[in-house]
Amino acid sequence: MNLLLLEEADFIAADLVVLRDRRLTHMQEVHRLAVGDNLRVGRIGGLMGSAEVLRLDASEAELRVILDRAPPAKLPLTLILALPRPKMLRRVFQTVATLGVPKVVLVNSYRVEKSFWQTPFLEPAAIREQLILGLEQTRDTLLPEIVIEKRFKPFVEDRLPAISAGTLGLVGHPGDYPSCPRGLDEPVTLAIGPEGGWIPYEIELLGKAGLQPVQLGERILRVETAVTALLARLF
Amino acid sequence: MNLLLLEEADFIAADLVVLRDRRLTHMQEVHRLAVGDNLRVGRIGGLMGSAEVLRLDASEAELRVILDRAPPAKLPLTLILALPRPKMLRRVFQTVATLGVPKVVLVNSYRVEKSFWQTPFLEPAAIREQLILGLEQTRDTLLPEIVIEKRFKPFVEDRLPAISAGTLGLVGHPGDYPSCPRGLDEPVTLAIGPEGGWIPYEIELLGKAGLQPVQLGERILRVETAVTALLARLF
Repeated sequence: MNLLLLEEADFIAADLVVLRDRRLTHMQEVHRLAVGDNLRVGRIGGLMGSAEVLRLDASEAELRVILDRAPPAKLPLTLILALPRPKMLRRVFQTVATLGVPKVVLVNSYRVEKSFWQTPFLEPAAIREQLILGLEQTRDTLLPEIVIEKRFKPFVEDRLPAISAGTLGLVGHPGDYPSCPRGLDEPVTLAIGPEGGWIPYEIELLGKAGLQPVQLGERILRVETAVTALLARLF
Repeated sequence: MNLLLLEEADFIAADLVVLRDRRLTHMQEVHRLAVGDNLRVGRIGGLMGSAEVLRLDASEAELRVILDRAPPAKLPLTLILALPRPKMLRRVFQTVATLGVPKVVLVNSYRVEKSFWQTPFLEPAAIREQLILGLEQTRDTLLPEIVIEKRFKPFVEDRLPAISAGTLGLVGHPGDYPSCPRGLDEPVTLAIGPEGGWIPYEIELLGKAGLQPVQLGERILRVETAVTALLARLF
């Protein structure tokens, strides 16, 4: 935790918060803070800054906060992601929050196992928990927007064209395609497939919605690694 | 598992192997193979190709293999990595094997907790297990070399200059440094620090050994994410 994130409900005054949950434990056991110490804090959806520990005991901590800095800029990106398997999904939520992705659309694909859609990790509270871990890691306060699209065709035909309009539309896909571009400044819409990849019909539909295939070489990366590698190369 | 890796001991003839372990289970339960089916295989340290299932029952599988393709090229890189915490270490072994890193030096740093050196995940068999999972993911047969250097100063002063000679020497480090270069063709020696980063004295010693700091922006990445992001950007 490189940034302690504050919820609206933590505030007892404009510049005072009281914490009682895992953040209290973390302050005591990992950061080993004492009264008078300072730490980095941020208000979810708002500014970042610092806090001073006013009071700290086994049950709660009271902090005085000064919030005076904007969070880091997000990437100019919408990420379309075939739903990963549940264990990977949790890490992907952390990773996208860490890397500064502002919007992720989780979409079905022929090679996504139907059972993946049943995972409790897709419930809003579970998604938010992982996103917050990612924001705490990277020092950011703005939660990425996560959109769930259980049907591929209606999403790609009816809603994706409006998302990709005015952006560079790309699909990460192995094969005889142009190499993924580097160091872009322009906005991007990027689609990343499931384990096993998109099927040709999906590539065709994504193409009609303005997304063209690019490749990263012959190695086959796990989804989390592919997300990081593609974003590090694009921006 | 995108490539089934074969050990020397699996071969009962020049082109025949018998499998009995987790690979047999994987063939049956994940790939659902039957007699006559083909799958991708590779010989650890050697060529890749395909195999035909000759015989398959609950206790063993016999395959006829044709090995006729070289594995993918490795990156022109030596990666110097401050020892990550054990849970992260296992994933990092998989990640470096997946990305095609040929050599990793795990080194101590002021901010590496001493207890991390006691982890069973540093035993040769445990390292090899994770590297093989990474090679199976990416379709490669060549195990990366893993070197363990428990003392920072003797390694950096006595052995690192010979490693970095004739390469571009870089240290991934947050701060007011040049931006990490992109799309290199030349060989690189890259050092990545622990959670919390290298201390100034370490940056100074790495600089004397020919490694200069470069940064990836203000976000703070986990080690595994930083490794992937730096390599995707460099090559």
